[in-house]
Amino acid sequence: MRKIYVIGIGAGHPDHLTLQAAKAIGRTDVFFVLDKGEAKESMIELRRRMMKAYGRPSRRIAEGRDPDRDRTPTDYQGTVADWRHRRSEVTEALISEHLLDDETGGFLVWGDPSLYDSTTAILEEILARGQTLFEYEVIPAVSSVSTLAAKHRIPLNRVGRPFQVTTGRRLADEGWPAGVDDVIVMLDAQQAFTAHPDAHIYWGAYLGTEDELLASGPVSEVADEILRIRAEAREKHGWIMDTYLLRR
Amino acid sequence: MRKIYVIGIGAGHPDHLTLQAAKAIGRTDVFFVLDKGEAKESMIELRRRMMKAYGRPSRRIAEGRDPDRDRTPTDYQGTVADWRHRRSEVTEALISEHLLDDETGGFLVWGDPSLYDSTTAILEEILARGQTLFEYEVIPAVSSVSTLAAKHRIPLNRVGRPFQVTTGRRLADEGWPAGVDDVIVMLDAQQAFTAHPDAHIYWGAYLGTEDELLASGPVSEVADEILRIRAEAREKHGWIMDTYLLRR
Repeated sequence: MRKIYVIGIGAGHPDHLTLQAAKAIGRTDVFFVLDKGEAKESMIELRRRMMKAYGRPSRRIAEGRDPDRDRTPTDYQGTVADWRHRRSEVTEALISEHLLDDETGGFLVWGDPSLYDSTTAILEEILARGQTLFEYEVIPAVSSVSTLAAKHRIPLNRVGRPFQVTTGRRLADEGWPAGVDDVIVMLDAQQAFTAHPDAHIYWGAYLGTEDELLASGPVSEVADEILRIRAEAREKHGWIMDTYLLRR
Repeated sequence: MRKIYVIGIGAGHPDHLTLQAAKAIGRTDVFFVLDKGEAKESMIELRRRMMKAYGRPSRRIAEGRDPDRDRTPTDYQGTVADWRHRRSEVTEALISEHLLDDETGGFLVWGDPSLYDSTTAILEEILARGQTLFEYEVIPAVSSVSTLAAKHRIPLNRVGRPFQVTTGRRLADEGWPAGVDDVIVMLDAQQAFTAHPDAHIYWGAYLGTEDELLASGPVSEVADEILRIRAEAREKHGWIMDTYLLRR
């Protein structure tokens, strides 16, 4: 039976790798890489370093072309479902072509695989088609959210209180969520925090990496500064990945 | 200046330790341990193993008595605040007595320090009193929630959707939270999931450890089984720590 590891590698710091993830990298014969065709060189470089540090000398890399995706769709969920489907076809072709019987494959996933990542859904879709069989295991990791909290030295929750994790799109479209005073926002391409001047923000970009940026304070006081350093960083690096906690 | 590490060690698997946490353990002169006076021997044993594997031969351990706490308070937040305050006094006494100038202290925290853990709040309370000075750094970790998701091989969120993290107490008192279809429940002493027979549950106890228990399915079908194995495990080990995702 073929085996596949979905290996969470943490948010960006090489030492956020767990011992379990390092061991899984060491057991992997073939790493599957979907090239996003984007300029995230520092992210690709980190994966390369981890493979070199913990991988087998005989490891192979199977690269596929990540399908294009409409970044400003009108039907968000439909567009993502379609993209996942095409991605699962590319992934299935890679697995069936490159992973031999009794070999072990691996996907290196940024952050923790349980948070806004599609790798497990794609593997389930492949298995559901019934043509390409394998077993798979998920290796959890330090998430960007845990890293954000650690860097700001704050808990995500307040005593006995809930918090919500949501997307920038939803915060912008639907406003502050009901029933919570603490909201963690991911995948925010539109800086939805600016609509909540009364909240306190704990913001971070490129968390864990050498390029890490942090800012915090009342939104009314720090929003302009965050917008400025965010725009500058995006210009400089060609991409940005940020996340934040809003607390009121 | 004295330095303190708040080191997340993951949910229970020795290999969930990150390289960063292992290095921080190796830089620690004094480990602070508040004995809960409970029978969580396996948890204490794991910490001991990690200190032995990654710690300095010269490391010291400073133990204090964790203050008693009313486990069924009428005023939950007030009770926790009072307990934290007494805990901060015990902790401050340990630090000022045992941590010398220029030495490094460490707290080994179960799971990730950002989730329902009081260590950073206690250190902030000590610093706010202004009598005992130190700098401190938080090392993020794999949380029990990430471990739960990895073991069930599911994402916590659905595509573009939010999720809430809450406590068993709140789910029992206030019912299903508004605005979300996915709820992660921690610290549930009352098995609040039984009130939601239409949801799907992904449950785990002692996550990451050799005693790990997993169950999943429609609450209407698996609730009785979870209640039974939960009661048996609690009887056998003398304690239980479980968490779950409810999805509808």
